[in-house]
Order: sequence, then structure tokens, then C-alpha cells
Amino acid sequence: MNGADTLVKTLLGNGVTVCFANPGTSEMHFVAALDQHPELRCILCLFEGGASGAADGYFRMSRRVASTLLHLAPGFGNAFANLHNARKAGSGVLNIVGDHATWHQPYETPLRGDTAAISATISHWTRMVRCAADVAQDGADAIAAARSNAGQIATLILPADTAWDTVPTVATAISPPPEPLRHPDPEQIAAAATALRLPGAMLLLDGPVLWTDLRLVAARIAKVTGCQLVCPCFAARIGRGQGALRVRRMAFRIADNIRAMADVPALVLCGTDRPAGFFAYPGLPSVPEPAGCAVLNLCGPDMDSGWTLQALAQALGCADLALDAADLQPLALPPVPGGPVTLPKLGQAMAALLPQDAIVVDEMISSGPAVAPEMLGARAHDWLNISGGSIGYGLPCAVGAAVACPGRKVLALQADGSGMYTLQSLWTMARERLDVTVVIFANRGYQILRHEMAAVGVTDPGQNARAMFDISGPDLDWVALAQGHGVDGVRVADMDQFAAAFGGAMQAKGPFLIEVNC
Amino acid sequence: MNGADTLVKTLLGNGVTVCFANPGTSEMHFVAALDQHPELRCILCLFEGGASGAADGYFRMSRRVASTLLHLAPGFGNAFANLHNARKAGSGVLNIVGDHATWHQPYETPLRGDTAAISATISHWTRMVRCAADVAQDGADAIAAARSNAGQIATLILPADTAWDTVPTVATAISPPPEPLRHPDPEQIAAAATALRLPGAMLLLDGPVLWTDLRLVAARIAKVTGCQLVCPCFAARIGRGQGALRVRRMAFRIADNIRAMADVPALVLCGTDRPAGFFAYPGLPSVPEPAGCAVLNLCGPDMDSGWTLQALAQALGCADLALDAADLQPLALPPVPGGPVTLPKLGQAMAALLPQDAIVVDEMISSGPAVAPEMLGARAHDWLNISGGSIGYGLPCAVGAAVACPGRKVLALQADGSGMYTLQSLWTMARERLDVTVVIFANRGYQILRHEMAAVGVTDPGQNARAMFDISGPDLDWVALAQGHGVDGVRVADMDQFAAAFGGAMQAKGPFLIEVNC
Repeated sequence: MNGADTLVKTLLGNGVTVCFANPGTSEMHFVAALDQHPELRCILCLFEGGASGAADGYFRMSRRVASTLLHLAPGFGNAFANLHNARKAGSGVLNIVGDHATWHQPYETPLRGDTAAISATISHWTRMVRCAADVAQDGADAIAAARSNAGQIATLILPADTAWDTVPTVATAISPPPEPLRHPDPEQIAAAATALRLPGAMLLLDGPVLWTDLRLVAARIAKVTGCQLVCPCFAARIGRGQGALRVRRMAFRIADNIRAMADVPALVLCGTDRPAGFFAYPGLPSVPEPAGCAVLNLCGPDMDSGWTLQALAQALGCADLALDAADLQPLALPPVPGGPVTLPKLGQAMAALLPQDAIVVDEMISSGPAVAPEMLGARAHDWLNISGGSIGYGLPCAVGAAVACPGRKVLALQADGSGMYTLQSLWTMARERLDVTVVIFANRGYQILRHEMAAVGVTDPGQNARAMFDISGPDLDWVALAQGHGVDGVRVADMDQFAAAFGGAMQAKGPFLIEVNC
Repeated sequence: MNGADTLVKTLLGNGVTVCFANPGTSEMHFVAALDQHPELRCILCLFEGGASGAADGYFRMSRRVASTLLHLAPGFGNAFANLHNARKAGSGVLNIVGDHATWHQPYETPLRGDTAAISATISHWTRMVRCAADVAQDGADAIAAARSNAGQIATLILPADTAWDTVPTVATAISPPPEPLRHPDPEQIAAAATALRLPGAMLLLDGPVLWTDLRLVAARIAKVTGCQLVCPCFAARIGRGQGALRVRRMAFRIADNIRAMADVPALVLCGTDRPAGFFAYPGLPSVPEPAGCAVLNLCGPDMDSGWTLQALAQALGCADLALDAADLQPLALPPVPGGPVTLPKLGQAMAALLPQDAIVVDEMISSGPAVAPEMLGARAHDWLNISGGSIGYGLPCAVGAAVACPGRKVLALQADGSGMYTLQSLWTMARERLDVTVVIFANRGYQILRHEMAAVGVTDPGQNARAMFDISGPDLDWVALAQGHGVDGVRVADMDQFAAAFGGAMQAKGPFLIEVNC
């Protein structure tokens, strides 16, 4: 029995049963220990960002912590961007990072780096194991940290000797249950109830209310107060389609949100932080609410938003209010459109053909505002967003969602520019035969940057700007890229071809890619 | 005139004329400023690791600092791994990172992160600009930092408002020349001269001696003392082929180096740190030299190794020693072999067909020890190694080398597993029509990990170990991957096909990929 064995047993003993792995040499004893336990499912990702993004998607859909397995300093660096997205999504992720043996760390070796320092810039919790005998307890502590505050990034650094040194007994440590989430004070509940009764008041929601039966509580609050229900533009997970909460997503652009909130007298936050502009712009404020608007920070993302909503409904006397069918989203399947491709028509076709309980991973970026609203009346589904704004989240997140929910169709709506950051996830979809349909929105450029360039006054970009916004010349061939990773795909030229390909993919199992120029 | 304009003018005024770019919205004003100066060549990379790796390759071949253009926190994260390689290679790289406007940074926006903290874990120099009026001087200081100590990582963080705010005058700051590199003391020179005369003494060399005329100085020292000339296994750049210094690369494995150094009485270090094992292993020491060996740390990698070698030759009285042809590497072109593919035969074929002054970027990993020695007698070429051990350096480094040396053929020898980390660089090769031939050594696995697994005693891997080492099931189709990125390619099945494809690529211009199963 060595340290690595105790870590694997501790993971299993605490219900961590999936590892998204990209190992290196310093993880070899841990790999050997994993090899003794096929009940811990190891899923290879060909790039670390694929592993961290998959762990994020897995948590969003299962609420269970998966482990990643990463190599020391630069390996963790490659995982960083999707850990950023996971952190902003409030996902619990456990990173296990092999490092040099403790006595080898002082030497200036090629791979030497300060893994703990890098981790500290993104993880909520970081610990380097000191000796093999500590591994089990440190592992249990790491799992507990990942589960705390509704989901955190925890990083356990495992020097090679702490993995290979023997320990005298089978030491498996059990994680304590996480501390109960904090509640707001009764006075805050009462103040929020009062504020929400003001005409035009807004309740900004994030967390489980968006995808669980807590949505009924929110719907009752809206019905009794008349308040607007809004969620962040990039809420990590939103239940959509038939039966979903009727909640408006905030806009990406601060100017649009300023306009929408011009007459809002009070903004109550539940499960989320105070909203701010995605980016800053000259002459525009950072926050969207008007000067006179009262902002009530009722319940942050790391608090108990479910308890809070129920307490609010009690305070408002609407806990048992009957809801009509129209209080939630009705089914409204559009006809499948034909003719030339447009973004709204793509949304309509997907809405019509999306199966019940699908999981939609949205990294459409600039195509999103024209596509997503068309899909509101589809059959019930979950919708995952790019919470941290770090592109390259979509394909990895789809991997994790598909692993978490093997019975559900996963639909990855993927812009071409952002898809290129983590395209290696296509291979993992093929390797694991994941039921993911990828739709590539190929607009041949960083379209969002073209918009932003125009916003700063450059409407006639020259050679260098074009060189940095256009990803044509040569065009990416996503069907070939998919094939290279072992995934079948097709390029469609009109809506009839799209509907045929998409409808077929919805009926079939396994990974498939559709490239559509738009 | 705004802050961004002054930065572009400062870059150009200090001779920084290439920017490997992966911009985002917070860099928009800098992009607009670059757009006014097409003489600063902006090269788009579809992933940040492609940009940082290209800047490394560009410096290795030109000794000039290129800039990267990166997005805030997670964008820098994606660049991290190849910055690690650049740092270990001693390459000067200037990162320009856009960040939120100063007054927007306190808000919990999706992309908010601590860019300065991440940068500090890998950069030698990090500064966040405070206001537009400071941009020019900060830019000049950053360039100076990147050029200091023979090459460093310098990161300038540019909040959006410091880019877009106006400055009253055209402020272009000039970087001071870097401080002269440090020299060792005369007593250290004398001690090294004495040590090198001991029978079996070893001189471990890195830096310009490996690829400039300083090699003649080293050859004279070896000739007069009889010492062994050795370089690190992963020296950033080594001149090889006809006329090169006869220097033996250290082995990857510490056990091999321990064996090779068993009788070495003295080890003199010039241009490099004390050697240590790439990884640690149970029961093996971290350093290769025997207990009685004197280690003379004569000149570190950030010191003046050229001056040091010349001083050493003076002390040894060999500054004008005549050299024979045999003191340097003679031309020894092997015949082009036919028949089934083997790794040594691939090396022989490439040695026979490699044109004069080619640049070889080696990320063959486990295939390297069987291929590289076969190419010693080729026409004169430069050989670049994975100095930091962080895989995914090869294709980006080839991009940068090709941009630095447009008249020279670049040959990227790329393992399949490591190539997947940064395959997006293929697209930049196509976009910029770079003269790069990529040979993919497709062994369908993390072969190095199979070796390492056996080294820890697991010779019959089970389901999880196989899942993490094999990258078959499905096989990657590199010809399709290349095609997807706009690069033509071919898969070869025997040595005749390889020689035909490789010979053709050596004669042609532009990017081309050859996949060979081995």
C-alpha cells in the first residue's frame, strides 16, 4: 500500500468515481493505483483544458465532484482557462496534480515550476501533500473543499514520493459533509419582500432555482409581486423549454442592460453577485442599474439560495399560491424552416427537433442572441453557458455533461473561433462514444471582435485588424477536423440539409458534427 | 493619440516588429493602433499557446524579442505552458495582455481574474500600467526586461482605459540597452582550467557556443585538455550537422547519465545550471555526478558564456590552437533506406535529404533517441529542443522559427500525443504560408508514459492505465487534421513512400505534413 493507493481508495470512499485525466510521468504511481480500481472511471483528454472543462460540465449536470489528473506546473497552466470558467460557474472540481518528489523540487529541472503558486491564482483551496501518510486525509480534505460553498476549485498537489512511499495501513479518510450554506438575516428577507413589491422591481436569480422545482417558488414570487425575473446572461445552467421558469436573461452588452433597467427601482440579488458589464467601455458605467435603484444583496452565490427563496415566498405569503400553465414556459414548437440558412431559422429547426431532456451547451458567442431565443418553446432541456467568458469551454463541457447524463442527448452549439481552443475534446467524444451532437457555427472570424472593433469606432479595418479577426484564409474544414479526431460529420448548405442532418443526429446515438456556414 | 498608439510606436521604435496575437475585446484599442502600423507584423494564432510558443521559436532563431498579444487572466493561462518552455530556453518574450479598465477591475465580472498574479508565477518581470501617460515608458521598460540577462519573460498588463485614454504628445520611449552580462571571477576561470585538465573531466555547455563560432573556442578547449564536451539533453538550440561542435547531449534518463559520469572527476558548467534528473525515481539520486566529482559552477545561463569560454581558452593557452577537420562534425550523409519503416531509418532518410541551413524542431519525445543520432552527419542545421519539457511546444516553435528565418526550411519532428496540445499552429502555418514540413511520429500513445509505467514495475497495464496511455481507439488521422487546418499532407506506409514525400517537401515551399506510423 502506497500513498497513491490511499488516494484512490479515498476518492472512491467519498463517491468520486470519475477522473478526467491528462497524466504525465510524475503521476505514474497514481496511474498505477487507478489501474487497480477500474470502478473509478478514467477518461483521457488530449489536452488539460479538456479535462478541466469536462469536470466543470460534469458537476453542472450531476452536482458531483469529478477529479482531474494533471501534470505539474505547465500542465496545470493548460487547465487554467477552463478552471476559470468552472470557478465562475460555481462548479466543484478536484484537481490532482502530480509534482516532483519533495527532495527533487529544489533542483532546476526542465519541468520545475511553482505549481502551488499557479494554483493559488485560481483555486479556492490548494494543498501540497507533505508525506505519504498524509495523502488520505489531504485527499478527504480536498474533496470536502471542492464540495464547500456549493462548489469550489480544490487542488491537491501530490509530490511523486508521497505517491510511491509506502504507508503502514490501509488509510482511507472520509470527507466531512460540507458546512451548511449560510442564510440571510430575517431583516434582509423582509426588506427584499418589500422591495419586490415596488412596481418594476427586479429579482436577479442564479443557482438551482433556474433548473429545479425551486422555479415554482420563484414563479409564485413573480406572480404575487409582479416583479421581473431575470438571470445573468451567462448563468451556468438554465432549465429551458416546456415547463421552465419564465426568466429573462440579461443582455451581453452593458448598454442594453442599462436601457432595460432604466426604470427599475429595486434590484434584489438571490444566488448571484451584483451584475456588472462584461467589459468596460469609454463613457459607460460598470453597472447597469440607474443611480436611484436600491440594490439588495440578499444571497450570494455561495449561500443557500433555495432556503432564501422559500423564506421570501413565506414573507410574501405566496408559498402555496396556485400557478397557471402560463406562469411557466409552454411548449411552442416552431415549424422546421427550409430555404437559405439564417441564424433564427437554425434556432427554430433545433427547437422543433430537440428531444426531451436534452442538454444544450452554448458557446455560440456572437450567434447566440439570434439563435437562443428561438429555442425557448422547445421540449424541456437544460442550457449551459460560458460562465467565465473564457472561450474553449464548449466542447469540454459537453464531454462532461455527457458523462454525467448518459441517457440524455447533448447538443454543443459551438462557434468556430472558440471551438478551436479545445477541439481535442472531439476525440474524447469518439473514444467514450458520448452522445454529443456538435453544431459548428462557422462565420469564419472572431465575429464578436468585429462588433467590438466597430464599437470603438473602427468600421473599416485594415490589414492587421483583418489578420486578427478573420479566421478564413484558409477556411477551417470542421468536417475534416472531426474526422481527424474520429468523429463523423457533415457540412450543410441550406436549411433542408441542416434539418435532415440535425434530425438524424437527434435520433442516433454517439458523437456527430454538423458544420453550417452562417 | 492614445495609450495604445504610444505602445505600438514604442514597440516599433525599439525594434519589436512581430506580434503573435490572440486578442480579445479588452485589447480592441491596441488592435486598432496596430492596424495603423502594418509594418508591425501581426500573426494570428488560434490558441494562446500557439502565440507564446511562436515567440519562443522566433527568439531562439533571431535573438530578437517578439511580442505576444493575449487576453486577460484565462488567456494568459492558455499561454502559460509555452511560456514555461520559453523561460527554460532562456528566450526573451514580451507579453502584452489587455485587462479590464482600471475602474472596472473591482467588479465580479465573468472574465475578472488576477492576471498579475498568474504572470508572476512564470514571468521574470510583470507590470500593470497605471495610466495612459505611462504606457510608452512601461512598454520600453518591458522590452528592456525581455532583453535582460540574455532573454527573459516580461509581461505588460494594459488595462483598457490606459489604452484608450488620450495622451497629450507623441510619447515614444526608448529602451536602454540591457545591462552587460556578468562574468565569472578570474579565480573561477583558473580553477576551471585546472579542473578541465583532469583526465575524464567534463565541460557542460549551453548557450551560443552551441550554434555560433564560439564552438571553435570550445573545440580548442577540448582538444588541448582532452575534456568531454557535453550539453544538456534539451538545450534550447544546438548547431548540428557538418561543421558543428562535437558535443554529446546528456541522456534523458538519470540512470544513463549516472553511468556516463561514473568516472568524471570534475564537472565545469558554462552557460547552464547544475544538471539534475528530469524526474525523480525511487532509490535514485537527483544529480548524475558521482560523490567525489567537483562541480564548478563557472557561468550560469544568465551570464556571459562567450566571454567566459574565451577567457578559459586564454587561461589554457589554446586561443589560437589550429583545429583539424575532424575536430568538428564532418559531413556524413547516409544512403536513403528503403523497406519497412524503422525509427533509425527515418533519421537516415531525413539526414540524407535535409537541405543546408534547415531548422529542426524536435518534439519527437520517445522517438527521439532512435532518430536524432542518425542525423548528426547531415548538412549544417540548427536543432531546437523542448527545453521546459512541457509538451505542445513543437508546432508553435516551428511557426516562430519560420517567421524568424523565412529563407530556411523548418522541419518539425512531432510526436502524435504531444502534437495534439497545440495543433492549431498548423492553421497559422497555412495562413502565413510558412515553409514548415511537419513529420508526425504516430505511435498511437503516450509512449513515454508506457516506458515510465514499466519503470515503476507495471508491465501489464489494465483498463485504466491503457485508457490513459493509448491514444488509439479511435486513431488520430493527422492528414485529416492537417487538411482541416488548411495544410496538405500524406500518410506513408514504408520508407520509399517516406523518402518520396519527404524529399518532395524539402524541395517545395510552404507547409506540408507527413504522418508516419512507427
